[in-house]
Amino acid sequence: MQTLWDHRYAQRTQRMKSSAIRELLKLTEQPDVISFAGGMPAPEVFPVDEIREACDKVLREQGALALQYGSTEGYLPLREMIARHTAHMGIEVTPDNILITSGSQQALDLLGKIFVNRGDRVLVESPTYLGALQALNAYGAEYISVRADDNGMVTDELIGAFRAGPKFIYVLPNFQNPTGVTLSLERRKHLVQLADHYGVPIIEDDPYGQLRFEGQHLPAVEVLDCKNRPINGGYSGNVIYLSTFSKILAPGLRLAWVIAPTEVIHKLTLAKQGADLHTATFNQIVAYEVGHGGFLDNYVKHINDVYRERRDVMLDALEEHMPEGVKWTHPQGGLFLWATLPEYMNADEMFAEAVSKKVAFVPGGSFHANGGGKNTMRLNFSYEKPDKINEGISRLAMVLKKRMM
Amino acid sequence: MQTLWDHRYAQRTQRMKSSAIRELLKLTEQPDVISFAGGMPAPEVFPVDEIREACDKVLREQGALALQYGSTEGYLPLREMIARHTAHMGIEVTPDNILITSGSQQALDLLGKIFVNRGDRVLVESPTYLGALQALNAYGAEYISVRADDNGMVTDELIGAFRAGPKFIYVLPNFQNPTGVTLSLERRKHLVQLADHYGVPIIEDDPYGQLRFEGQHLPAVEVLDCKNRPINGGYSGNVIYLSTFSKILAPGLRLAWVIAPTEVIHKLTLAKQGADLHTATFNQIVAYEVGHGGFLDNYVKHINDVYRERRDVMLDALEEHMPEGVKWTHPQGGLFLWATLPEYMNADEMFAEAVSKKVAFVPGGSFHANGGGKNTMRLNFSYEKPDKINEGISRLAMVLKKRMM
Repeated sequence: MQTLWDHRYAQRTQRMKSSAIRELLKLTEQPDVISFAGGMPAPEVFPVDEIREACDKVLREQGALALQYGSTEGYLPLREMIARHTAHMGIEVTPDNILITSGSQQALDLLGKIFVNRGDRVLVESPTYLGALQALNAYGAEYISVRADDNGMVTDELIGAFRAGPKFIYVLPNFQNPTGVTLSLERRKHLVQLADHYGVPIIEDDPYGQLRFEGQHLPAVEVLDCKNRPINGGYSGNVIYLSTFSKILAPGLRLAWVIAPTEVIHKLTLAKQGADLHTATFNQIVAYEVGHGGFLDNYVKHINDVYRERRDVMLDALEEHMPEGVKWTHPQGGLFLWATLPEYMNADEMFAEAVSKKVAFVPGGSFHANGGGKNTMRLNFSYEKPDKINEGISRLAMVLKKRMM
Repeated sequence: MQTLWDHRYAQRTQRMKSSAIRELLKLTEQPDVISFAGGMPAPEVFPVDEIREACDKVLREQGALALQYGSTEGYLPLREMIARHTAHMGIEVTPDNILITSGSQQALDLLGKIFVNRGDRVLVESPTYLGALQALNAYGAEYISVRADDNGMVTDELIGAFRAGPKFIYVLPNFQNPTGVTLSLERRKHLVQLADHYGVPIIEDDPYGQLRFEGQHLPAVEVLDCKNRPINGGYSGNVIYLSTFSKILAPGLRLAWVIAPTEVIHKLTLAKQGADLHTATFNQIVAYEVGHGGFLDNYVKHINDVYRERRDVMLDALEEHMPEGVKWTHPQGGLFLWATLPEYMNADEMFAEAVSKKVAFVPGGSFHANGGGKNTMRLNFSYEKPDKINEGISRLAMVLKKRMM
């Protein structure tokens, strides 16, 4: 039925589709469904008491500041705290290199807003983060997909992909969403070198980097980019780096940050002024209060212990229950792993049956910017408790086996 | 100097200019400047204790929910509370007619995103809210300006303006930003009738409606629009209504809402998914906790007492100090009044001198979508205390007098 509004929507609105992930999250609200679908932290490990004490202190001591309008760039002490954290990663930035955003999703939206003209091409891994596609679709982005394997984006294929003229490269180097795979050091160096040589900027999305359960941290792409450049009062290279408090503190506060050359931060700040004026002052001051004394370092160790166990339980359960022909990744951190079914199978078609058996996952097709991946699925291991993970994988394996006979 | 990034920005980025208001807000950070420039609530009346108690209760009782990801539409009990509030205004809506946004600025951004193609025309009052222009500029909006007088938008001029084919009308009927003027009842009815007849939707921005110091509340444009329509399970008319907790609770929480037909809410929700996933869960639950028992009604009475006094002090000071030839509006509520200088004067040129005399205002030109208004200024009366208001107006009058000699 034609409605009053149909002819009024902008062209770009036609491209807005409900995110599979967001719709699927609604299923996790049914308490008897074991959900591997969302990307949610384990709620039982949230540092509720620390946040409660911080709220109390902030409102007692700085209530008028915390409840008032604030600057678009973000609360300066929080940006200074992030700059110190970034220095530990191996790169000197100033608070002028940092913009606080309302979650990393907003950073992706603002980057689309300042960089993407309709029809511009963005180079992405295949598969890649669905939320990035959703943010960039609104600005009319098209995509150049580059294959990824167990070492991340196959950088040998970049030169060919550059011929299609990408505006920028979007990459998740650590425990990628959706696959859980980490970009190897060799490929990081290769990526940085090629991007610099061909003049293609990189957007490095790193929500999970600190959630490493084993092995050594690899240098961020931005850190490697920085190595060949003079640092004069802050970062001025070819990489825009995103990270977030959603995985190391709490997603319900909606706090993330962008690190970029100051001129890019300036444009992002103008875009953010128009988008939401600024991120909630109160939340920023509370995050600073919780984080500035070093609490987050210990807290991250704790959640990594919890998530490592859950990953191990899921890997063991997959090994035990899954039929022959199903493969999966072995992430060293993060929230997700990625299962690949035999080619002839379609994860979309299995979804309804899985939910009827009270287990949920995200079919992998929607993570592919240019199609494909119908026989893949994303499995989250951070949200459900170990016994549920084992039970859920057992149920899922039964659904698959039925289809394979 | 051409930089690495210059040629990479999208076309729309060229149109992003720093908001005069946001830049000027920085001046209010100098403690000795008396600022009439911002649009900030009085910080000393924030309900800090109530918010502190709500934070404590929410984190003790619902910490896992409050700190987790939430739905894009917003926290259901908060939307139900807003629906009850809206019913008191005279219109039945369901929670499905309501989207929670990260401040009204985000609502303006999302409306631009779903409705505005490059070159689309938006009908605005002249002057109008600068932040709306900033949000819509990013989507390539052009503007049709309609004159406003002491009764608001001159609706007799609408039919002529409709010939230019506006996508929608953007109007602030109550204590408008920047002028403080209220749209008369007769003109509200005229606006609704014409918009309906010509099929032009209305965006009604109402951040200040509850801040009425005297006289009777006038029905919202959406309420009048509703009168001629069947209500079947929620609002389905021609008006999109925006309001916010920024003025009746605290702007530092970044909480606002949109009321619209469900199909428009659905599109806005898709746009919001891509823009920031959802508004901070914690803030929404805290606002519900503070507001659901009726506290805000009494609190609004209190702030209206405070702001009424400040408005009166400013009006008296203007009467006492301003030279002949300067006129100003007499708002019945809100945060602002609007001064008009003799035609030959330029408020931009006076700004630097005013700041050197330690008083700040916003020059009126930037509130005009299509130019003009160089001899106007916006004066905020909510932020400074009464004695400062009197002193500030006295300083400002001296600056003007010097220019008039």
